[in-house]
Amino acid sequence: MRRPDGPRYTRRPKPLPKAGERPLSGHPTTLKLIPLGGNEEVGRNCYLVQYGQDILVIDLGLQFPEEDMPGVDYIIPDISYLRGKEKWIRGVIITHGHYDHIGAVPHLAPALGNPPIYSTDLTNAMIAKKMEDVAPGKKLRQHNIKSRDRIKLGKFWVEFFGVSHNIPASVGVIVETPAGIVVHTGDFKIDERAQANNRTDLEKIKALGSRNVLCLMLDSTNAKESGSQLSENEIEKNIQTMFTHTKGRMIFGTFASLLSRIQQIITLAEHYNRKVLIEGFSMRTNVEIGRQLGYLHVKQHTIVSWEEARRLPNNRVLIMCTGAQGEDNAVLMRIANREHKYLQIEPDDLVIFSSSVVPGNERSVDRLKDGLYREGAEIIDYKMLDIHAGGHAKSEDLIRFIHMVRPKYVMPIEGNHSFLRQNAKNALTAGIPKERILIADNGQVVEFNKGQGYVTNHRVPANYVFVDGLGIGDVNHIVLRDRKQLAAEGMVIVLAQVARTGKPGRIDIISRGFTFVDHQPQLLKEMKNVAIRSLTDREPRTAPNPEDLRNKIRQSLEKFIFYKTHRLPMIIPVIVEV
Amino acid sequence: MRRPDGPRYTRRPKPLPKAGERPLSGHPTTLKLIPLGGNEEVGRNCYLVQYGQDILVIDLGLQFPEEDMPGVDYIIPDISYLRGKEKWIRGVIITHGHYDHIGAVPHLAPALGNPPIYSTDLTNAMIAKKMEDVAPGKKLRQHNIKSRDRIKLGKFWVEFFGVSHNIPASVGVIVETPAGIVVHTGDFKIDERAQANNRTDLEKIKALGSRNVLCLMLDSTNAKESGSQLSENEIEKNIQTMFTHTKGRMIFGTFASLLSRIQQIITLAEHYNRKVLIEGFSMRTNVEIGRQLGYLHVKQHTIVSWEEARRLPNNRVLIMCTGAQGEDNAVLMRIANREHKYLQIEPDDLVIFSSSVVPGNERSVDRLKDGLYREGAEIIDYKMLDIHAGGHAKSEDLIRFIHMVRPKYVMPIEGNHSFLRQNAKNALTAGIPKERILIADNGQVVEFNKGQGYVTNHRVPANYVFVDGLGIGDVNHIVLRDRKQLAAEGMVIVLAQVARTGKPGRIDIISRGFTFVDHQPQLLKEMKNVAIRSLTDREPRTAPNPEDLRNKIRQSLEKFIFYKTHRLPMIIPVIVEV
Repeated sequence: MRRPDGPRYTRRPKPLPKAGERPLSGHPTTLKLIPLGGNEEVGRNCYLVQYGQDILVIDLGLQFPEEDMPGVDYIIPDISYLRGKEKWIRGVIITHGHYDHIGAVPHLAPALGNPPIYSTDLTNAMIAKKMEDVAPGKKLRQHNIKSRDRIKLGKFWVEFFGVSHNIPASVGVIVETPAGIVVHTGDFKIDERAQANNRTDLEKIKALGSRNVLCLMLDSTNAKESGSQLSENEIEKNIQTMFTHTKGRMIFGTFASLLSRIQQIITLAEHYNRKVLIEGFSMRTNVEIGRQLGYLHVKQHTIVSWEEARRLPNNRVLIMCTGAQGEDNAVLMRIANREHKYLQIEPDDLVIFSSSVVPGNERSVDRLKDGLYREGAEIIDYKMLDIHAGGHAKSEDLIRFIHMVRPKYVMPIEGNHSFLRQNAKNALTAGIPKERILIADNGQVVEFNKGQGYVTNHRVPANYVFVDGLGIGDVNHIVLRDRKQLAAEGMVIVLAQVARTGKPGRIDIISRGFTFVDHQPQLLKEMKNVAIRSLTDREPRTAPNPEDLRNKIRQSLEKFIFYKTHRLPMIIPVIVEV
Repeated sequence: MRRPDGPRYTRRPKPLPKAGERPLSGHPTTLKLIPLGGNEEVGRNCYLVQYGQDILVIDLGLQFPEEDMPGVDYIIPDISYLRGKEKWIRGVIITHGHYDHIGAVPHLAPALGNPPIYSTDLTNAMIAKKMEDVAPGKKLRQHNIKSRDRIKLGKFWVEFFGVSHNIPASVGVIVETPAGIVVHTGDFKIDERAQANNRTDLEKIKALGSRNVLCLMLDSTNAKESGSQLSENEIEKNIQTMFTHTKGRMIFGTFASLLSRIQQIITLAEHYNRKVLIEGFSMRTNVEIGRQLGYLHVKQHTIVSWEEARRLPNNRVLIMCTGAQGEDNAVLMRIANREHKYLQIEPDDLVIFSSSVVPGNERSVDRLKDGLYREGAEIIDYKMLDIHAGGHAKSEDLIRFIHMVRPKYVMPIEGNHSFLRQNAKNALTAGIPKERILIADNGQVVEFNKGQGYVTNHRVPANYVFVDGLGIGDVNHIVLRDRKQLAAEGMVIVLAQVARTGKPGRIDIISRGFTFVDHQPQLLKEMKNVAIRSLTDREPRTAPNPEDLRNKIRQSLEKFIFYKTHRLPMIIPVIVEV
């Protein structure tokens, strides 16, 4: 009987003006930085750099829905602001291949007039894959860049710098604008011991320190964590120990997109003489892409099929699979539920959860672990042993990064509002004065005028745009409110046949998700009686008006059902004149 | 378009037999320990101690629903096993006043023939309060016990020992049965510096070491955490620092049931000369109960009304309120959404999240913090500073407890299966041999026969029993499956009028939660055409059969809608013969 409100996001109050906010200057050629998404959540990253009639788009990502958005597949940035300005878009730069940075490309690139897309080869391959899934046959204008490139896009010179993240070929972006240099970190951590294709380009970053950077747009995802992020190198010893101690199969659950982790595990498997079985569609696809482009180094006979794996002794097998977040139909959950075609837990199997738990997934992951334990597996996760390094800089690294770049302004990006606030504290610690730290909401325009930066009180549209199946934007808060009510309370259809004279005829009641009616014949009967009464009990001198009749049925049944059950199902009266 | 399965719990495979499981002995007078709830989840705690025709029930708690149980208020234990055995129930012992231990009493005590309930005065008061909410006017047979009591219930002698938890007057239970002594810890941590009414009764626990305890039923909630739980005392210094540093109001968000924390904060407020405003219905109720029974010591003029508080300078005000878990309608969320009648954030306000985040609530809490930051508050939570001590023993304390009690068998209780497994590791470390650690599922009978304990392969019913409004058990997996489909995809009602001849007449389509139809008139029109076609295109020589017509409409529209939208709304065809 939890009563449904509308979705929670509709309840958010109008933002209060913050100290230092100013109106837009009105000058046509100021520099503007506009977050269309990513500054109030983790995901849906999309940042604009605009100077006059030149616009760069950095990232076009998706966000996974909150629990008050049932049925929504994901959320993409609102590009209303760019409508009519398609010709000003000089390019879309994608920093790396994770869905929260590439996921909206197939939906939005066509709508933006198919602008040229710039990213590294791996990122481009992942975008192309996603495009094939969502809009097969359609083509994008993709251009591969390397981190040493310097390209001219409209009035902007754009450079890149390699950053460490948990997918190779991730870059940060340096944009030379007529008003000064803007640096956008993308997702990053500082990992000096990472593999070559995933190393933080410290030389280039340090060189920024003498280039008079105007504004640093800085990843806030882990800004609230103290200390430094672990290096992939540091966790390797722990993972090695597992290799030397495990008598049965090793089953690694991780994200399909954590290519760096996948490489690490494959290399160890080769070293410790285990063959690798890759399970899960997205995992296989990504491994294929990584190998083709030379980002994954795998010896010829390392990866085996199930047929080959089953003939090997268990201590020579490693299974790499999806589903470490407890996703309902991914490989690990199917194993736990004994629903997998051929994989099941065997004695001495060790399941390793080699990723952190995404907030909101804790209970699903607990349920998954329960299932695997029940099937007889041993389990190790990142809380028991340091076997996972996140992909984002923590506070010490962030401070260090600011010290290297020495920007005039810092604009925290990528994260919930509270994460941005935490990152502002890091900037303060790094010596940036408070008035030069620019925290903007989604849609809120940050402007630089004559070297002076400030958050304006001007907001461009930055609403949730829901993708549900093939529909983009046709699911709105009214549809979601109905879905929430239907979910929490179910519904009751009252089909009332009424004669032209107004005499009520047959009443049928159909309910779904309300109560298990087979056990409640009495309740059904009483509901019918209530409906009949409400049809009978009317002003006899006027002709029946279907709208009035519907309202009467709805009101009287709502009252009756609430009294009887303390529930508020959606009541849908249907009047048929016979 | 996330396709709904049935609820996930319906997919759980049949449990595999575990090593050491045996059939029931069949002897009528063995000792049986049966978890009816609490051994596969956090919540719904209910444990039976049975010897022949004597049964003790320990705890009758509720569980909060999972996300695949929309509309369900909570889940209570399945008491089918006790039907027909009501006369054997010698008593219901409730260890402490939290909902996961008392919450099902109002629903189940009457169904169990109103057996006598034994608990401390505070716990009893909370049960009575809950009873008043759920079943006003009905009375329970409540008996107050003190931790020094020794009472005879049927063949059992029952004693208690005080334990530290984050509510005062919590006890563990010692049951002397003809087959040996069983100890049930309830929820506990070891906190030797706790206040007198919340202290761990170490003397009595140590004395158990020489009483030859047969089986220790041991809290597993925090079994997977290493080290010792913080003492309330240790966090006090940090909380004190906040008192000396805060210039504005202090707003403490915590659980209404964490009476120990509430006491601590009130005492500090008195010391630092702040008046306390209590906000939130459950918080006020619990403070009232605590004061009446002498568990909360509050000076006469400490607690003030809003009228009084608003006249004080902000640095003399402390607000204690509910909602630190991001609950939708609790005080903190209403403040963040500017929906609270009179409270709003003022400059220099400090909001303190003085409880840990319950798994599953992470995103709501992040959203709440975002809102409070936006309103201008500063925020401190337990991750930034040690200001919260959990209520459960961690692994070191658990090992220490086992060392004190020196039981022959350990039965991990209270937690997900994986928590029980973690606690089994603690027991192993404490020197209990593997075959004397008894892990049972809900419903699985543990038996002791001639001093030998084992988990049997016998399972009594332990299903989910859902409470939704006034209904208990009428919401089942079919209703939940429908709710899930309705939530994810919405529904489409097709009202088709058909002449007696079979000629299709008027078609009306009503949809809810499917798509925002105002923007899709074309889709609606096409759906009508599909429905008409499916009515027309039938074997003309046979009379129309409504069931067949409904199936045809459903199938053709399902196909059409999926093709057009990739969604699968619930389609409900209604045929009216006119």
